[in-house]
Amino acid sequence: MNQNSVFMEIAIQEARKALIFNEVPVGAVIVKDNKIIATAHNLKEFNNDPTCHAEILAIKKACKALNNWRLNDCSMYVTLEPCPMCAGAIIQSRIKNLYIGTFDDRSGACGSVLNIVQNDSLNHWVNVQWLYNKDCSLLLENFFKHKR
Amino acid sequence: MNQNSVFMEIAIQEARKALIFNEVPVGAVIVKDNKIIATAHNLKEFNNDPTCHAEILAIKKACKALNNWRLNDCSMYVTLEPCPMCAGAIIQSRIKNLYIGTFDDRSGACGSVLNIVQNDSLNHWVNVQWLYNKDCSLLLENFFKHKR
Repeated sequence: MNQNSVFMEIAIQEARKALIFNEVPVGAVIVKDNKIIATAHNLKEFNNDPTCHAEILAIKKACKALNNWRLNDCSMYVTLEPCPMCAGAIIQSRIKNLYIGTFDDRSGACGSVLNIVQNDSLNHWVNVQWLYNKDCSLLLENFFKHKR
Repeated sequence: MNQNSVFMEIAIQEARKALIFNEVPVGAVIVKDNKIIATAHNLKEFNNDPTCHAEILAIKKACKALNNWRLNDCSMYVTLEPCPMCAGAIIQSRIKNLYIGTFDDRSGACGSVLNIVQNDSLNHWVNVQWLYNKDCSLLLENFFKHKR
């Protein structure tokens, strides 16, 4: 298992934790110098706060860990393609690399519906790598199947 | 002075408070049933957190005040055109009306660089009204003039 797969596995574990809270299962991990500095999962319903997506919570934790709002040399691993809010937070925090587990054709903002993380008109460009992990999409499919 | 101008004046007062913290002067107010339920200003540097823009902080406060992450019948007054992150948070929270004080041609995501709040491919559409308040732009111009 290569390093990217290992970090994505940990993001998937985070997504599974979200299920305990009956939240949409999305997880995120932020890595610097090959060390995990933040992990988070979706907590929107639990916190009654629409900004509490996994990515935003992970960014807040990473900034606290580094005592810096700039995450220049950091990589984020996230199980689902970030929405416009989270893609915007990723460019605000200057995250360097973004590894995405599966795409979101309803609100993905890293290429699916629009592209905020790779947009020449904005002030930061993120390296994006799609890992297409089946567990990421299966977790979501099963969650929404049970919801209906 | 009409009601919209009154609420924008209060957003401008918030923006002025940001100056005390040497933050980019942006302020936001959220209104429901003609009553203010949240006010906030930029606190990114103070909190060392890139998500602490005025709009995000105001949304978090408003959700707490209503004990609900859905701000369906709420209006936001903000002194500067929201960035992609904040425009994304506005659609996540389902805010109905957005009143903007001045545009941001570098990272505005309500029409200037891109448009997230009025995009048929996304799941929420916001009514946007531009108020073009000179104080909103002057506050920013003076701030950046002194920074240099």
